[in-house]
Amino acid sequence: MMNINCLGVLGGDKRQAALAELLAQDGYTVYAAGLDHLPLPETVNRAEIGELEEKCTVILLPLPVTKDGKTLFAPFSEKEIVLDDSFAALFRKKEIYGGQISKLLETSSGWEGVNLNDYSIREEFAVENAAVTAESAIALACEKSEKAISGSRCLVAGFGRIGKALAWMLRGIGAEVTVSARKASDLAWIRVYGYTPVKTQDLAGTGPYDFVFNTVPFKIFTAGVLERMEGISLLMDLASMPGGVDFAAAQEKGIPAVHALSLPGKMSPRTAAGILKNTVYAMMEE
Amino acid sequence: MMNINCLGVLGGDKRQAALAELLAQDGYTVYAAGLDHLPLPETVNRAEIGELEEKCTVILLPLPVTKDGKTLFAPFSEKEIVLDDSFAALFRKKEIYGGQISKLLETSSGWEGVNLNDYSIREEFAVENAAVTAESAIALACEKSEKAISGSRCLVAGFGRIGKALAWMLRGIGAEVTVSARKASDLAWIRVYGYTPVKTQDLAGTGPYDFVFNTVPFKIFTAGVLERMEGISLLMDLASMPGGVDFAAAQEKGIPAVHALSLPGKMSPRTAAGILKNTVYAMMEE
Amino acid sequence: MMNINCLGVLGGDKRQAALAELLAQDGYTVYAAGLDHLPLPETVNRAEIGELEEKCTVILLPLPVTKDGKTLFAPFSEKEIVLDDSFAALFRKKEIYGGQISKLLETSSGWEGVNLNDYSIREEFAVENAAVTAESAIALACEKSEKAISGSRCLVAGFGRIGKALAWMLRGIGAEVTVSARKASDLAWIRVYGYTPVKTQDLAGTGPYDFVFNTVPFKIFTAGVLERMEGISLLMDLASMPGGVDFAAAQEKGIPAVHALSLPGKMSPRTAAGILKNTVYAMMEE
Amino acid sequence: MMNINCLGVLGGDKRQAALAELLAQDGYTVYAAGLDHLPLPETVNRAEIGELEEKCTVILLPLPVTKDGKTLFAPFSEKEIVLDDSFAALFRKKEIYGGQISKLLETSSGWEGVNLNDYSIREEFAVENAAVTAESAIALACEKSEKAISGSRCLVAGFGRIGKALAWMLRGIGAEVTVSARKASDLAWIRVYGYTPVKTQDLAGTGPYDFVFNTVPFKIFTAGVLERMEGISLLMDLASMPGGVDFAAAQEKGIPAVHALSLPGKMSPRTAAGILKNTVYAMMEE
Repeated sequence: MMNINCLGVLGGDKRQAALAELLAQDGYTVYAAGLDHLPLPETVNRAEIGELEEKCTVILLPLPVTKDGKTLFAPFSEKEIVLDDSFAALFRKKEIYGGQISKLLETSSGWEGVNLNDYSIREEFAVENAAVTAESAIALACEKSEKAISGSRCLVAGFGRIGKALAWMLRGIGAEVTVSARKASDLAWIRVYGYTPVKTQDLAGTGPYDFVFNTVPFKIFTAGVLERMEGISLLMDLASMPGGVDFAAAQEKGIPAVHALSLPGKMSPRTAAGILKNTVYAMMEE
Repeated sequence: MMNINCLGVLGGDKRQAALAELLAQDGYTVYAAGLDHLPLPETVNRAEIGELEEKCTVILLPLPVTKDGKTLFAPFSEKEIVLDDSFAALFRKKEIYGGQISKLLETSSGWEGVNLNDYSIREEFAVENAAVTAESAIALACEKSEKAISGSRCLVAGFGRIGKALAWMLRGIGAEVTVSARKASDLAWIRVYGYTPVKTQDLAGTGPYDFVFNTVPFKIFTAGVLERMEGISLLMDLASMPGGVDFAAAQEKGIPAVHALSLPGKMSPRTAAGILKNTVYAMMEE
Repeated sequence: MMNINCLGVLGGDKRQAALAELLAQDGYTVYAAGLDHLPLPETVNRAEIGELEEKCTVILLPLPVTKDGKTLFAPFSEKEIVLDDSFAALFRKKEIYGGQISKLLETSSGWEGVNLNDYSIREEFAVENAAVTAESAIALACEKSEKAISGSRCLVAGFGRIGKALAWMLRGIGAEVTVSARKASDLAWIRVYGYTPVKTQDLAGTGPYDFVFNTVPFKIFTAGVLERMEGISLLMDLASMPGGVDFAAAQEKGIPAVHALSLPGKMSPRTAAGILKNTVYAMMEE
Repeated sequence: MMNINCLGVLGGDKRQAALAELLAQDGYTVYAAGLDHLPLPETVNRAEIGELEEKCTVILLPLPVTKDGKTLFAPFSEKEIVLDDSFAALFRKKEIYGGQISKLLETSSGWEGVNLNDYSIREEFAVENAAVTAESAIALACEKSEKAISGSRCLVAGFGRIGKALAWMLRGIGAEVTVSARKASDLAWIRVYGYTPVKTQDLAGTGPYDFVFNTVPFKIFTAGVLERMEGISLLMDLASMPGGVDFAAAQEKGIPAVHALSLPGKMSPRTAAGILKNTVYAMMEE
């Protein structure tokens, strides 16, 4: 029997498991598959994929739906879940929500005309995750460095969503914050919020910094720029692959550098699940 | 003789007078006209309009260039400066900077093809002025009300430039800040920055507030909304004419309300002049 | 007939008038005298001093109770209220609250053994007023200067209650804040909160500053120190008389300087009255 | 040969090793003993204890000098360093700096009259370490919980040094902060800084909270109080042993709780070393 209040949660990591729990708390009947190696509360029903097809009208897929383009992103699943025509056939009458869902379309022609919804392209989803990313980046930097951030000199490269949230939090714990950007209006906001502005092209000549956070998805921190930055305690790249840091050059120059990706799901899966849930609810209402 | 380092400052108010002074400090030769009733330092040369034409390659007009569409905005000028064909004829070979300069085009066909530049449409100009507006609004609210803002409950309607700067400063002095917006992504930012978000359409049911600041140029604070807002200490409308407040209704309900416009030029003319100067310099370099 | 819920409010300024109103809002029967030239709501009963004696068990005197040591501080009273033996005789069986109440003892031996309580020496009273003072100082500085505070360089001399609140708010609106103090632990807090610390004795060599706020009740800003500070937009002394600024020297050097005193009562009388009320309530409970 | 610019660093952990390095950077000749299992830069001379006696006029001992009252706190030393009469005899003519140095006096009568200086009782040392503790606590809480702190409801119990710094940073990253205290003046500051105040005795009835940080060295979080706090994500006790949390009760109720001690030395040894260094320099100058 199908139930409009029955939601299927399929694949994903800790964020997806927390999502299942939050949905159940809200009164939904929740069936979860592909989360075999993660604990789930009693309020969530463990199920086979087939049961989801049978019982649920709405299916929630992970972010991203797939990493390799061939199987569902489901690192805690007992068995691989292949994305093929028969997978598409199972769910083509469902209302489906997923992250980077366009990748699904390439796995089977069966997805044509299906009600596919991508929560990951929603601006509010990106904004709230940027805040969680910023906080996680600070925690990680504190842990990975022998210096405290409070009272230190920090550079944030880029004033997009993550840059905005990160600069704000760094100042909020008492760091001296410099932010680089290209646009004159961004530089104006940077001044207004009490940070020191620097044009991206002038970055190399500034500093010294104790911590450098990159949020720009271009190779800004080239060997040449890194040359001038020896002595920093930590260089953290938050930009999605391939990032903005020449890691080989950093290693050569003895600059501790990390590429920190997907922080919300890894470090704050419950909060990340809440953000996901609210975004999907908003999409359902529209 | 014409001098590439000679700038003509024409009309305007205290901001324009301060601009003349700042330009002279930077080493330019400055000729000022239409500022007769304002004090000027010795470093600025008072001049007739004709001299500006004779000596300067660059002419700086005020913001706005005109209020009535017929005369230059020059409240401190001895005599009216009419915007007509002969005025256009004087300056048509100059590099001209002004605020809301499109209004000039309507005053004479002589402006066609002239090098007219509008600093007021530059985003960085608007951003920096928004910060000055926010600060001035707080000072004005403190002065006009018998309540302190620190520790009070404040509503900021709208999350554009002024709303962003104002909410940030209000929280920065210890107010409890609620911000209204329409877009889900704005509401997400409002949460991230530690304010209480409220959807614009739900505004009426919220509160109570001690101070309400409107930044939205639509009639949001109608008689119906104001009905629910009796008891507030001050309602300040920062949106440009006609604003977003039904002032007649506010008066009827005994809500103290003010329409505060053009605050940077009035309350912080020196800072406003500095912003103008930097914007014009950036435009010159491009 | 005497009523335990009947409070007498006597003398004072706008703060005292607002206090009467707030007490009435809380359900007390309030009789007010010595506030003749100020508006009072209908909920407050205007009375003669004699009526207060007749009807009220608790009498609330202003802050300060007296300025000249001879008459009650009552600038809005129709007639002078002399502090003498007969005044003391009237109220010696009452529970009395006032600010700087020790001055009362010097006006008559009749006060010996009377239940006199000084709300102005309560630490929480001083702290909350410091916040209102800080906000008012910012508003005043914005109004009295042609520069904006946001983005400016501010010096706060002293890290007592007002210095702490003021530095925090100035940073909160985006100023670059330097704070001077003598004690190493204060300088440590100054660093922690993100301000630039400077030892009081090294003050003269620092800067330049756009705004200088003094909170230290010693003559710190002598002619010699002011020498180095020409060019500042405003020097505001918040320290109680005689203050910490050599105003004659400031004027000579063309430094705009103001001595701003008793700001809470003047600029935010309603909030100041609320603070007073809460303090008195806490004292009554003890 | 003895050298006034020769400093001996003896025992301790990573903070002490970093201290040796910082001193060498400042131009001192540094001899280090009892740090055998920690890396040291070439600028620091590894030495035997005897060499320190021979060469250095100033000896820097760790914080604490001893944990067991019998041996020097030196967890990275090859061999135990016993605190006895012969240890005292070695250093009795030196200028000695250490943390909780009074414990040394109990290990030998030879310390009488020796120039012993305790940096750990200096208020500025405690303040700067409180800031590092606060930051580390946030990083640890982020790491140990599946929730983000930004946007969460946090309780800080106590408004001493760590409470002040922690509340400030939590608000600075966008948490909703409640702070408990006993004193009316502390509650006033809590309000001024924009936190929600709660009297310590009323703690139990408040909440719910996502994160609870205790800084009070009394058993505040008893079984009875914890009863009302189920559902919190993390309870972190920052008060020195025995702390303020009934950990057995917390475990029984399923509340994740950690006792986090000595955070600066563990999580930010370089910054902690810098604080130590500055404190010792200030003491040397006095």
